[in-house]
Amino acid sequence: MAMQFLSDNAASVHPKLWEAMRAADAPQAPYDNDALSLALDEAFSALFGRPCTAIWTATGTSANCLALAAMVPPHGGVLCHREAHIETDECGAPGFYTHGAKLILLEGEGAQIAPETIDAAVTAIRKDVHQVQPQAVSVTQASEYGRAYRPAEMAALAAAAGKHGLSLHVDGARFANAVAFLGCTAWEACQGAAALSFGCVKNGGMSAEALVLFDQELADVVRLRRKRAGHLQSKGRFMAAQVLAMLEDDLWLANARHANMAAKELAKAAADRLLHPVEANEVFLKTTAAEREALYAQGFSFYDWGPDAARLVTAWNSRAEHVAALARALAAL
Amino acid sequence: MAMQFLSDNAASVHPKLWEAMRAADAPQAPYDNDALSLALDEAFSALFGRPCTAIWTATGTSANCLALAAMVPPHGGVLCHREAHIETDECGAPGFYTHGAKLILLEGEGAQIAPETIDAAVTAIRKDVHQVQPQAVSVTQASEYGRAYRPAEMAALAAAAGKHGLSLHVDGARFANAVAFLGCTAWEACQGAAALSFGCVKNGGMSAEALVLFDQELADVVRLRRKRAGHLQSKGRFMAAQVLAMLEDDLWLANARHANMAAKELAKAAADRLLHPVEANEVFLKTTAAEREALYAQGFSFYDWGPDAARLVTAWNSRAEHVAALARALAAL
Amino acid sequence: MAMQFLSDNAASVHPKLWEAMRAADAPQAPYDNDALSLALDEAFSALFGRPCTAIWTATGTSANCLALAAMVPPHGGVLCHREAHIETDECGAPGFYTHGAKLILLEGEGAQIAPETIDAAVTAIRKDVHQVQPQAVSVTQASEYGRAYRPAEMAALAAAAGKHGLSLHVDGARFANAVAFLGCTAWEACQGAAALSFGCVKNGGMSAEALVLFDQELADVVRLRRKRAGHLQSKGRFMAAQVLAMLEDDLWLANARHANMAAKELAKAAADRLLHPVEANEVFLKTTAAEREALYAQGFSFYDWGPDAARLVTAWNSRAEHVAALARALAAL
Amino acid sequence: MAMQFLSDNAASVHPKLWEAMRAADAPQAPYDNDALSLALDEAFSALFGRPCTAIWTATGTSANCLALAAMVPPHGGVLCHREAHIETDECGAPGFYTHGAKLILLEGEGAQIAPETIDAAVTAIRKDVHQVQPQAVSVTQASEYGRAYRPAEMAALAAAAGKHGLSLHVDGARFANAVAFLGCTAWEACQGAAALSFGCVKNGGMSAEALVLFDQELADVVRLRRKRAGHLQSKGRFMAAQVLAMLEDDLWLANARHANMAAKELAKAAADRLLHPVEANEVFLKTTAAEREALYAQGFSFYDWGPDAARLVTAWNSRAEHVAALARALAAL
Repeated sequence: MAMQFLSDNAASVHPKLWEAMRAADAPQAPYDNDALSLALDEAFSALFGRPCTAIWTATGTSANCLALAAMVPPHGGVLCHREAHIETDECGAPGFYTHGAKLILLEGEGAQIAPETIDAAVTAIRKDVHQVQPQAVSVTQASEYGRAYRPAEMAALAAAAGKHGLSLHVDGARFANAVAFLGCTAWEACQGAAALSFGCVKNGGMSAEALVLFDQELADVVRLRRKRAGHLQSKGRFMAAQVLAMLEDDLWLANARHANMAAKELAKAAADRLLHPVEANEVFLKTTAAEREALYAQGFSFYDWGPDAARLVTAWNSRAEHVAALARALAAL
Repeated sequence: MAMQFLSDNAASVHPKLWEAMRAADAPQAPYDNDALSLALDEAFSALFGRPCTAIWTATGTSANCLALAAMVPPHGGVLCHREAHIETDECGAPGFYTHGAKLILLEGEGAQIAPETIDAAVTAIRKDVHQVQPQAVSVTQASEYGRAYRPAEMAALAAAAGKHGLSLHVDGARFANAVAFLGCTAWEACQGAAALSFGCVKNGGMSAEALVLFDQELADVVRLRRKRAGHLQSKGRFMAAQVLAMLEDDLWLANARHANMAAKELAKAAADRLLHPVEANEVFLKTTAAEREALYAQGFSFYDWGPDAARLVTAWNSRAEHVAALARALAAL
Repeated sequence: MAMQFLSDNAASVHPKLWEAMRAADAPQAPYDNDALSLALDEAFSALFGRPCTAIWTATGTSANCLALAAMVPPHGGVLCHREAHIETDECGAPGFYTHGAKLILLEGEGAQIAPETIDAAVTAIRKDVHQVQPQAVSVTQASEYGRAYRPAEMAALAAAAGKHGLSLHVDGARFANAVAFLGCTAWEACQGAAALSFGCVKNGGMSAEALVLFDQELADVVRLRRKRAGHLQSKGRFMAAQVLAMLEDDLWLANARHANMAAKELAKAAADRLLHPVEANEVFLKTTAAEREALYAQGFSFYDWGPDAARLVTAWNSRAEHVAALARALAAL
Repeated sequence: MAMQFLSDNAASVHPKLWEAMRAADAPQAPYDNDALSLALDEAFSALFGRPCTAIWTATGTSANCLALAAMVPPHGGVLCHREAHIETDECGAPGFYTHGAKLILLEGEGAQIAPETIDAAVTAIRKDVHQVQPQAVSVTQASEYGRAYRPAEMAALAAAAGKHGLSLHVDGARFANAVAFLGCTAWEACQGAAALSFGCVKNGGMSAEALVLFDQELADVVRLRRKRAGHLQSKGRFMAAQVLAMLEDDLWLANARHANMAAKELAKAAADRLLHPVEANEVFLKTTAAEREALYAQGFSFYDWGPDAARLVTAWNSRAEHVAALARALAAL
């Protein structure tokens, strides 16, 4: 059996979530009318210190796209990074959910967007009917290269978006890792967002993410669109159970801290190879094919990242001895 | 705690499925590259006695709509019953997935379609660019009123569809109940179908249905569309585990038989009130509001079906004492 | 050359429109920034006695669908008659423009809808996320069978729509014929509408209809969607010229009166065969195939309307001698 | 009255086209069943020396998008230049017509694409369900900066597309100008294309473009989609008349030659300011705001092209004295 650094997507489900799902097995009202689903709003409002509406959905892709579809009309646009997950890894799902709205691609170090990039992009668009007019910005926290926006950066992004009347969406597939790194409050890490895709699956979940709507006026449309997208599961209580268990006693943060620490240990062992500072649970390392072969041969599982790099991902359950072994192997390369 | 006859949608998850999910908890390749997901084709090919491609998806709505979207272009149409689930209970999901194809509504007793109705509907459509041209027929097995198409009826439907070059989709949200009632093979109950939505959730599952493609040329598009719809779960192995457990030792049939027998018992107790013959696990009874109130007062949970009827749904885990109690109560009305 | 009663769709272009187009040939600003296009709002505001926004578009289908797409979200619905043009003759264009909103089909004599039918249809829809929620009603003035809603009927329709929060769209492909028949003001014939597709092409135009928005908040979206649908012609001034010429000195009404009178003459000659009262420029007559053959043989061109009927359509340029000849022929059948 | 170099989009309609439209005014079968519309296939097959299907549509946007929608499924992608008209100036129409397919943006000098850029772009896309898979390439002939692909370049593009199974679409809004410049056959200028948007409006037309389908299997879908998009005009004979008149005696080439020569004269006068070689009827000149003000003051009408440039467009009817005057003015700057 390989030592896993392939993806947090494939990790096991946390025991607390299993427990919560089993406890939810008694018959209840179907769809999202059960007591657990109904408890989500309050749980997330408490976490973020402000009123919000929270709904479960099975995947990050559906969470992202339900949010965008509620923010942006079919003839509109979404500003996002050229390497954003919504652009590169969702098979065009935003185009599907928004009915053809355009992703307007921005540049930025570490798959992060700077406020002035938003400003420049919007300014370059003629305000006429010939060009697609943007209505939203989507950023990823932590970014696709494991970089975390600081609270002040997040505030500046929200201000840049707001200046142009754009709603802010935060793809938080690894939001827990970002908050664990930043040491700030949950809200500080996404402040100004109208909607946050709050990831659970990569962080010990089985099949549930939460879509948190700080702009609660989006809620009615999101609920209709969720049904229309075939994402309103009839036994939704099992999804609510996962999400609530994740919040209980800040399990989400504990899991993320574990993964982050493992990533930090790897980063330390290969400091001179880092392609990006390590701020979450992903480590991108400059490596030759031969070096990667050597690591594979030692039983480590991970992805090549193009011809000259490797991507290592730690998880809530990365085993200390595997991490230590990989750190040694990296140091020895 | 109420005695549940509200919906099989809300029933508990079968212990065998829990076991299978727990057994799938070891890390594996993400998405549908794990061993369990890869085993689906073979399992369903064996069940149906012919080669097919089977994929998991979380809901019946997504299974139905992924199939239809692969069969029908955006400018096309789908013949279905006026009371089909895809028409009345999916918030327009077929319109979403197919990008606006039209559901062309047919009449028929018991929410069932007759072959000659298909023929007449297609014949009435001018073959020009002004009218929507149908490309598929969708029928529900068992129907929305719990009626099962006999094998010969299924064959006749497929022939009527084929005569006009239409693909046949079978919504099998309660396919198990139909097969259990018919006592035929799985294939006989959907023969001629290009695609079958094979329901598990109403039959003891948690969050997985199978979409079975007998027309395997649909598979590539269905896989892309599943991802694009946000339905490619990264820990898909838990869905595959549920589906495989359902097939093992014909658990799906055993569960359905239990539910059907309970429905039969209720039907027998209220034979003079039946709005439809009971062939699956749904019982539609003529009742007054006062009669329903009396039943509610005795602790039975079920849905009003308009002002003059009640819908009772049994499940794989309907308890014998509850069924007997309801039968007695019905007889006493 | 046949005597034409086939379709007003195929009639010649009125000389005044040719003149107006020629006069518009001097270079002007492209798209809809020319003086003629900019004059539409005022011309229609004067005609209807209230502020409105009017834009040109090439076809009735695009006018209808741009209006509906601005009124109804993709997950919404539009109530319309089962035989409405948008349902039966636009190849699913409403599904395309609205991104899959559902046409919810109503019954009614003469392809007309009664206010109470709207009420009953809305009431029957559960207010939940499983069923498509309507946002608009579309009626045709005059109807597909040439029936005109009286001002009071129009007001009642608007009230029934408004009671349920639905916007009212009027498909006025033959609006001129209705107003000419009713002898009322333009506004009385569509009162309460949020949008009117004001037909010109069937009434002596070449390639321009007007979409009149009484709910001016729809205008921005309609303009963007028109461009996005490829309907923003760069030499739009020629379309504006047609529409303005049609309004000048009430040419639209004069043309319609001519067509209506011709239809009346035919109706009188075949009073015992009428399938619908003749209130516009269409005459539906019960006829056998042999009778129709006899008419064809005499040089009359028209459509069979199923096996037992004929549809005769008159136009702004129906020639008196052709009408008289057909009247004689009908009387002689 | 200004001397017009603003846009060929706004120029007058050629007298031959007026004649042809007037001649088409006799009643004929509606939609595209008239003799003129039916003659398009043959006319274009003769022009291109190979069988093709040709249909009229009102705008370049609709021609482009109908072609792309027939080539590319909603989950697919289209490779095009970052500055392609379909990306920058159609309000997202490709996203609308294709139901959300992605435009995958390429770089290239002069808004032209090199074959190796196609190759590199396709190679970089993972062949899995997570990334959008391209099915077509769209290039503009002449390009958005007035550059013409040579026949050999066109062949190389087609080969690069074909190697990856991609269909080739050519946006020929100014195809006439390209062919006039290249001095090659019509086919050589678009060889290998599956579809060509053959522009007429910028070249003396009023309201008709031709969509030429060399891949005739696209024709049925294109016809249905044209209707569905509201582009099937009932008096289509007036559009066919324009297109046929354009082809007669090579009027399209004569018009384009005139415009090209005028552009050449301007280019010669401002050779040191050219931002792109002038190969069609557009001239992009480096200019200061003050210089442009000086030109405006002399009565020349044109667009600023960002802060540091001007775009001058000539047309089939650019007047010799205006061109000479502008040439002098440019030389004198």
